[in-house]
Amino acid sequence: MKLNPLREIWANGGTVYNGWLHIPSMWSAEVMAHAGWNSLTVDLQHGMHSIETAIQMMQAISTTPTVPLARVNWNEPGSIMRLLDAGAYGIICPMINTRAECEAFVGACRYVPLGYRSLGPTRANLVMGADYAQQANQQVLTMAMIETKEAMHNLREIASVAGLDMLFVGTGDLRLSLHGQVVPEGQDPLLEDALDEIIAVCREFNLVGGLFTTSPESAARMIHKGYRFVTIKTDSNLLGEYARQVIQQTKSQVESK
Amino acid sequence: MKLNPLREIWANGGTVYNGWLHIPSMWSAEVMAHAGWNSLTVDLQHGMHSIETAIQMMQAISTTPTVPLARVNWNEPGSIMRLLDAGAYGIICPMINTRAECEAFVGACRYVPLGYRSLGPTRANLVMGADYAQQANQQVLTMAMIETKEAMHNLREIASVAGLDMLFVGTGDLRLSLHGQVVPEGQDPLLEDALDEIIAVCREFNLVGGLFTTSPESAARMIHKGYRFVTIKTDSNLLGEYARQVIQQTKSQVESK
Amino acid sequence: MKLNPLREIWANGGTVYNGWLHIPSMWSAEVMAHAGWNSLTVDLQHGMHSIETAIQMMQAISTTPTVPLARVNWNEPGSIMRLLDAGAYGIICPMINTRAECEAFVGACRYVPLGYRSLGPTRANLVMGADYAQQANQQVLTMAMIETKEAMHNLREIASVAGLDMLFVGTGDLRLSLHGQVVPEGQDPLLEDALDEIIAVCREFNLVGGLFTTSPESAARMIHKGYRFVTIKTDSNLLGEYARQVIQQTKSQVESK
Amino acid sequence: MKLNPLREIWANGGTVYNGWLHIPSMWSAEVMAHAGWNSLTVDLQHGMHSIETAIQMMQAISTTPTVPLARVNWNEPGSIMRLLDAGAYGIICPMINTRAECEAFVGACRYVPLGYRSLGPTRANLVMGADYAQQANQQVLTMAMIETKEAMHNLREIASVAGLDMLFVGTGDLRLSLHGQVVPEGQDPLLEDALDEIIAVCREFNLVGGLFTTSPESAARMIHKGYRFVTIKTDSNLLGEYARQVIQQTKSQVESK
Amino acid sequence: MKLNPLREIWANGGTVYNGWLHIPSMWSAEVMAHAGWNSLTVDLQHGMHSIETAIQMMQAISTTPTVPLARVNWNEPGSIMRLLDAGAYGIICPMINTRAECEAFVGACRYVPLGYRSLGPTRANLVMGADYAQQANQQVLTMAMIETKEAMHNLREIASVAGLDMLFVGTGDLRLSLHGQVVPEGQDPLLEDALDEIIAVCREFNLVGGLFTTSPESAARMIHKGYRFVTIKTDSNLLGEYARQVIQQTKSQVESK
Amino acid sequence: MKLNPLREIWANGGTVYNGWLHIPSMWSAEVMAHAGWNSLTVDLQHGMHSIETAIQMMQAISTTPTVPLARVNWNEPGSIMRLLDAGAYGIICPMINTRAECEAFVGACRYVPLGYRSLGPTRANLVMGADYAQQANQQVLTMAMIETKEAMHNLREIASVAGLDMLFVGTGDLRLSLHGQVVPEGQDPLLEDALDEIIAVCREFNLVGGLFTTSPESAARMIHKGYRFVTIKTDSNLLGEYARQVIQQTKSQVESK
Repeated sequence: MKLNPLREIWANGGTVYNGWLHIPSMWSAEVMAHAGWNSLTVDLQHGMHSIETAIQMMQAISTTPTVPLARVNWNEPGSIMRLLDAGAYGIICPMINTRAECEAFVGACRYVPLGYRSLGPTRANLVMGADYAQQANQQVLTMAMIETKEAMHNLREIASVAGLDMLFVGTGDLRLSLHGQVVPEGQDPLLEDALDEIIAVCREFNLVGGLFTTSPESAARMIHKGYRFVTIKTDSNLLGEYARQVIQQTKSQVESK
Repeated sequence: MKLNPLREIWANGGTVYNGWLHIPSMWSAEVMAHAGWNSLTVDLQHGMHSIETAIQMMQAISTTPTVPLARVNWNEPGSIMRLLDAGAYGIICPMINTRAECEAFVGACRYVPLGYRSLGPTRANLVMGADYAQQANQQVLTMAMIETKEAMHNLREIASVAGLDMLFVGTGDLRLSLHGQVVPEGQDPLLEDALDEIIAVCREFNLVGGLFTTSPESAARMIHKGYRFVTIKTDSNLLGEYARQVIQQTKSQVESK
Repeated sequence: MKLNPLREIWANGGTVYNGWLHIPSMWSAEVMAHAGWNSLTVDLQHGMHSIETAIQMMQAISTTPTVPLARVNWNEPGSIMRLLDAGAYGIICPMINTRAECEAFVGACRYVPLGYRSLGPTRANLVMGADYAQQANQQVLTMAMIETKEAMHNLREIASVAGLDMLFVGTGDLRLSLHGQVVPEGQDPLLEDALDEIIAVCREFNLVGGLFTTSPESAARMIHKGYRFVTIKTDSNLLGEYARQVIQQTKSQVESK
Repeated sequence: MKLNPLREIWANGGTVYNGWLHIPSMWSAEVMAHAGWNSLTVDLQHGMHSIETAIQMMQAISTTPTVPLARVNWNEPGSIMRLLDAGAYGIICPMINTRAECEAFVGACRYVPLGYRSLGPTRANLVMGADYAQQANQQVLTMAMIETKEAMHNLREIASVAGLDMLFVGTGDLRLSLHGQVVPEGQDPLLEDALDEIIAVCREFNLVGGLFTTSPESAARMIHKGYRFVTIKTDSNLLGEYARQVIQQTKSQVESK
Repeated sequence: MKLNPLREIWANGGTVYNGWLHIPSMWSAEVMAHAGWNSLTVDLQHGMHSIETAIQMMQAISTTPTVPLARVNWNEPGSIMRLLDAGAYGIICPMINTRAECEAFVGACRYVPLGYRSLGPTRANLVMGADYAQQANQQVLTMAMIETKEAMHNLREIASVAGLDMLFVGTGDLRLSLHGQVVPEGQDPLLEDALDEIIAVCREFNLVGGLFTTSPESAARMIHKGYRFVTIKTDSNLLGEYARQVIQQTKSQVESK
Repeated sequence: MKLNPLREIWANGGTVYNGWLHIPSMWSAEVMAHAGWNSLTVDLQHGMHSIETAIQMMQAISTTPTVPLARVNWNEPGSIMRLLDAGAYGIICPMINTRAECEAFVGACRYVPLGYRSLGPTRANLVMGADYAQQANQQVLTMAMIETKEAMHNLREIASVAGLDMLFVGTGDLRLSLHGQVVPEGQDPLLEDALDEIIAVCREFNLVGGLFTTSPESAARMIHKGYRFVTIKTDSNLLGEYARQVIQQTKSQVESK
């Protein structure tokens, strides 16, 4: 089996730069796969794709060494297993609030005796190798999202689930949950403390800390905190933001002359 | 009929900022339609879409005031007419090298007595108004691409075709044709002269000058030359470039601390 | 945020005419969006679409002032949240039989502190406004389907769930459940009594009463009962029925001459 | 080979009721295929489908005895042949204005020695029978659209092309061409004369007369004139019109009580 | 209602040859539907399709007498009901390990009073007949997958659920579960005993025994054991294997000359 | 630029085994790309795909070292150029009957000064390298189909067009044309003579000889004649044939016991 390159990056003390895909298109996925990300996550929670398009986007990513990952829209074994069968090297699962939820999630990603994943790695077998089923339990990444007060309360219990690889902070939802209402982004000691606590627990349980950020600045700051799986913006954010910049720059230059 | 907003911009002496769509996705099209472009061109020549997706992208653009346009992949009446029926406010046609080619193109965009467009504006009727057929000859834009030495030779003949609205410079192809071989972008007096000549002919024949540019700098320079329909990069270029920038900025900040 | 126009109709004592979409196509959705319905419901339970097509159909509806809604195929938070993120102004959820089921459903539609909806309104933010997250709890409609004897038994408990906006009668299923077997449509005192009881409970709890009907006659009768959200046929029923009528009318006229 | 049922209807003196498909969906196509039409035409000229969806719609139609036909968007052999290979029992070709254009069209539908159709009836072989290639020249229908003054001028020359089966009137375009400008529908002696002349030429050359109509009334009138292939409205017209009727009927009944 | 042909085959003592579809394409589905299988199962667990494509594939299958079935990716009522509404004649449900799970599954496939399936057989009504709802409880097949040690432990309890039609062995998963780890295919007395026990229980409870096999040899052996619903390879396995054979045969012949 | 691996195979005296894709699916394309073919041709003439799906299939093929090629449905520059821009390493063009047709075809595949291909290699640039435009004229393969008597008559003129790489025999069409009618496959001296003549002309003009065959036997025989680009069956033929074999083998084994 083609080993999971992300494990090697972490083994060497590196950081994984992860892109985030909301646009349901093989072409935008392939463009992102050439942009320098170590991995790309097809987001089936807040993105725009059916599972069929998600699978095709993982095919597009497979044209490069970039690693395909997926976020499911809920902790449902059916979706988790399909995405793994289709070649995802790991699953990000939202809203893991308890140890039991984490066990259900991790179990869905692991074959007997470590879990209850159903055998049938249709595309994984083809693209990762005929021994996929023998190796998958060691190679597939399980990434549990910490994004509520409840999860913070149960953090060490969640972190201690055997087979878990990462605590992935859903920054937006965690802020919302900690404040008890929608608040604008900005200085946020409540969130900051939680981010510190999560990375501390990651160290304690030998897990990778991961998260979503909205700028290079916050990404760099989080890497300094110890996060080793860092997402920066989504593809549609990148597209919309840069289009606005480019128009604005042109207009400025037109006016300045 | 909902009048073509681009004509009003030009009537007021303004410039149209035009985005360029290669990603075959309704979502990326809608994101671009919110980014501040006056118009968006679905490119069926060098883009990745079937005509069905192109039509759906024009639907996505119609959720905003941004004006949907299309570039066909060749001077074929069948494709030109379908895109107009589906709600394009104008057609960019590649490789117009002679007066006869220009007449064939313009004729395909105009109903009798100005052309030979077939009657059946299925979606145009629904979204632009029931009197579409009465008004379309005045509202639909015809944009002929000038991108070869031969076209430069026939420039004034092409420009004089009744019903033509724009000369649109295919900058890449024109450079290739002028040099007689693939040359890198850069200082290019041959191209520069041609750009000057084309805009002069536009002024003479009361046409809009349009073109594709690859940076805000060149866009602004072209606007100063007199071009009033300016495209800056494609959507997939924007996405790939900005992703690379964002990764690079993050890495720089990580290292600089 | 662009406020939910349906709330204004009801505030003014009006009735919402709601169309129902089974055909997985952006074009038929756009045609229906121009036909005079106040809202259109993309039906993911008995319709033919993947979630990706459902999202694209909501884009097509957004080209008009018609309000996009969605019915999920089951009370699953993952699907509910995706459709809201993609721009649905409300969710119809089938088979709400108990207070707990209703709470789970409503909670999935509301951000903290009113529920547990995950933050990430990708398309909603773009098309409804940047303050979407602040306002969504007040604007998004929650419509619980009452369609079993058990639900009738628990009707007032279901109706009393905070944040619920509508009881939506699944007429076909409710008839089936009340009779204990499939029975043909027709005079049906059992069903009629239930419809009366439901609208009475709606009045008591200040909820809107909604339902699906199969003809203008029954729709008008239900509006007189007090239902204020009335669906009449599905798109594919409309298409098939009218095609048969048109053929029949033609044949009759041919024969009558 | 499964023989073309339309030829039998005509042999028995009957009339073919033909439905017209603009919605790019297998489901609406299957609904229409159950509505009582003898044939359904997938319209690639003014409809919304790529060729791939058109093929899939012909599959949906094949679930019933209804006969799949296609209209191409232009007289191009590549498209004509693909649709035949995919199982169309006949092709309607727009804008046949001269004998040469008609010969090119008919030739694209016929194998050697009657034409130049390329051999490779991928789906036709599967669904119509292994002897398809032997029989296709006799079974496939060629339907040339008469829709310009020029075509009227050349009518008998066009009609005399060997292998042609039908003159199909593009009513809207023909009216436009005869009047020299867009005119509203209504009493139209110019068009009426042309319709009489075309059906007379059909009788002379033993061709079927076909056309598009917008109401049962005009369809019936055309059948009385002798037209034997009659289209009544498009699928999206049917859908939009009937939706408006149903809403209006409901509102009338609500108000009348 | 068009009765389920599979029930008749079994009533006559026959065996059902079932094909398995992983390729998300209407065309490959139609090709398989002409290949001689009695039924085809669209596999939404380890296959590559969204539910929308799955529905379209069932349309493609409906062009022939072959019977469309579906495997869901998990025991979720929402998916089960959609596939039935779309015309599946039966559902294969993975991972049925307890009587309660089996009851939930079977209940999702049956209308009141035998279950809790929601009424709305959109496509089933169209293609199977207007009395579908009256007959469906007798015609729809419920096929529970036995694929874990736990299921073997609960086998007779699962088998005794009223309304269940088949025990379908998930051979790969059952081997994995029995051995407690991934093991290569081959001589396997543990699995063999389980297969014997399952077919014995099928006989006792008057159920059909079904399973997935990977070769004609094992299929024939299983038919001799008493299995009456036998799947042989998937479509993508067939395609890949035969392509390799054909290349190899050609190379051998080239070398042997 | 990533050089065209097929040129290297031929330079080393080898033969290219080419698979043929009619199924419009990324998954079947990826399965075929792992089966051992040197190249795969997406057939837009007798296959079932839109150009958008064709492009996506080339992405799927790009996950492996297999070389993506495409057959266009007609000698149209628009389609030829789009497929090259999307990453095809070569184009097979049907019905090249004259030197002029061959020049038009080859010119559409070559940039100035060797042809008139438009510059804009969107995907080719990304996946083959930033110097694609400099190298493409040497790397892209031009494969002209010889499939009529007329082409045989003009064979040496066609073969002499500068920049042409291959004569590709359309065996089925050529047999049809030589016999003047549809004839069954089998012993065919007319065709055999033509095949000998074509390969002789290939040798004379230093072109590769290519063709489509329907069995390993005929493929091997053609390789012995000197053909170096050999296609064996289509993907849907492989699928259907092998399914029938597998069912038949199983039934035989069941009966033989």
